[in-house]
Amino acid sequence: MKGVIVKKAGGPNQLELVDLPNPQPGEGELLIRVHAAAVNRTDILTREGKMGYLTNPILGIEIAGTVVQVNGESSFSIGDRVMGLVNGGGYGEYVVMPANRAMKIPKSLSFEEAAAIPEVFLTAYQTLFWIGKLQKQETVLIHAGASGVGTAAIQLAKKLCDAKIIVTAGSKRKLAFCQELGADVLINYKEQSFVEEILKATNGRGVDLILDFIGADYWEKNLASIKVEGRWVLIGILGGSELEKIDLFTLMSKCIQLTGTLLTPRSDEYKALLTHDFAEIVTPYLERGEIRPIIDTTFSIETVGKAHTHMEENQNIGKIILKVKE
Amino acid sequence: MKGVIVKKAGGPNQLELVDLPNPQPGEGELLIRVHAAAVNRTDILTREGKMGYLTNPILGIEIAGTVVQVNGESSFSIGDRVMGLVNGGGYGEYVVMPANRAMKIPKSLSFEEAAAIPEVFLTAYQTLFWIGKLQKQETVLIHAGASGVGTAAIQLAKKLCDAKIIVTAGSKRKLAFCQELGADVLINYKEQSFVEEILKATNGRGVDLILDFIGADYWEKNLASIKVEGRWVLIGILGGSELEKIDLFTLMSKCIQLTGTLLTPRSDEYKALLTHDFAEIVTPYLERGEIRPIIDTTFSIETVGKAHTHMEENQNIGKIILKVKE
Repeated sequence: MKGVIVKKAGGPNQLELVDLPNPQPGEGELLIRVHAAAVNRTDILTREGKMGYLTNPILGIEIAGTVVQVNGESSFSIGDRVMGLVNGGGYGEYVVMPANRAMKIPKSLSFEEAAAIPEVFLTAYQTLFWIGKLQKQETVLIHAGASGVGTAAIQLAKKLCDAKIIVTAGSKRKLAFCQELGADVLINYKEQSFVEEILKATNGRGVDLILDFIGADYWEKNLASIKVEGRWVLIGILGGSELEKIDLFTLMSKCIQLTGTLLTPRSDEYKALLTHDFAEIVTPYLERGEIRPIIDTTFSIETVGKAHTHMEENQNIGKIILKVKE
Repeated sequence: MKGVIVKKAGGPNQLELVDLPNPQPGEGELLIRVHAAAVNRTDILTREGKMGYLTNPILGIEIAGTVVQVNGESSFSIGDRVMGLVNGGGYGEYVVMPANRAMKIPKSLSFEEAAAIPEVFLTAYQTLFWIGKLQKQETVLIHAGASGVGTAAIQLAKKLCDAKIIVTAGSKRKLAFCQELGADVLINYKEQSFVEEILKATNGRGVDLILDFIGADYWEKNLASIKVEGRWVLIGILGGSELEKIDLFTLMSKCIQLTGTLLTPRSDEYKALLTHDFAEIVTPYLERGEIRPIIDTTFSIETVGKAHTHMEENQNIGKIILKVKE
């Protein structure tokens, strides 16, 4: 079968579509014919040699496809359309997936749309609800609102919690899209002081929860934007990870809970539980079209390098998809 | 009545015992004749002009005494022996306390012993269980094990959760005392690498929970000592609050939850709930003498400056008490 590997840690030109043996499902795993995979920042970090969580030489951590083999007890059958996270191997024609991590694809969704769901929606769900403990009608600040996780988080926070949603993004086009998805307060971080706007929007109180994909660049501003006893989930470092001269005292005096998280390195059991909880709660919304996957662009698997470059340019609204099977 | 105020932000010599009008209890408050108060680092920060939470000119946030007036509905009566947190005013002959924050003093304890309980035991209880979510037989690292909160936390973690307790302290005398209270692994931070010792004691896995009173000085070492998905409660900055350089990525890759906290700035409602929960769970242990307040030294209220200096010298094991009434 064909699959995309990294020749040598480096740029998009290091990606290569090569011939490899088909993977073999272990006990409790499904073998899936991949129709579509999605591109994630984790893939870029892996390509650059900065991650090292995955042993699979083929990139890719989420897919949508058709079950072609079931190994062991499972509620899935051959021919089922499934989507979900994989432990690497997503950018290939066939991939194995633990059966307890697979989700049935709602009838209304194509494979491309389904591939746009697992990573960003599970991450948004995990960070908003499992870690961030978002409550009904709380205020949440979602940085990079037009990103994959951002667009998922806006929809989930609005539909499940009727939250007041404040987003930051770098263009009018992105902000308008966030508003369409349900965002209430739109901040163009290139033109506005987000701290000022947030304090205005919360009567000086600050937000209950921050989903932070930015890291270092926004450290002080996030501290100023969060309420006393607020929760802050650090989930990305688009603005760098290295901080100089920080004062821990504000974390104490404001009683802030700061939780770092990544989904990829979590255990198989964690991913299975998260998938199960998410599918139970969110599938009805997906079936009714009230929550929807957001696709920016679809590339063929042969042009995977272009797909990576597109993500690195930060122009995308929503997910970047690789079409693996016509 | 007599009470201790701060003449001007500064050293212990700025403390002065002066004559002031008696405080008046508001609705739902008790007026208490103070028998003993305890010294806290918060008092030192207030004396230095670094806090500003409290509007009461009299220092002191915890006391033990006798109810002399009850204003409004309450389960307390005149003559009851009570202990608890106050919103300032503890270093005085009389103080007001919200009735829903008072705890009956177990018969077996003196006023001095009772004054040694509220702040450190409530803080230890809050950080171990409410914030730190300590579970049965987990491993907890308690820095400054011989401090007021440290000695309370060791006892609570052992009696309530049968936890494996690792402590750090700076002398053999302090470590021996921690062991007597229930600590399992003793680390002299002046002579040993605590990261190495902790990894040895946890088979390389790291601890489930850190109670960190140190802050900046231990940042990197705490990161190296905590397990993946560990909880870290930042509750003091004895080792400074300013960090020169940190890398946020470790918080993400290890999925760490870091929560800053202080008890004093929390709301009245929070303190009432915490007090209620603590009293219900821990009072039986105090009555049976299975958990006990730890007193280092008792000073008379007239020598309050010496009491502060004693705390600043970091030689104490357990609490420093001010005797207000003979």
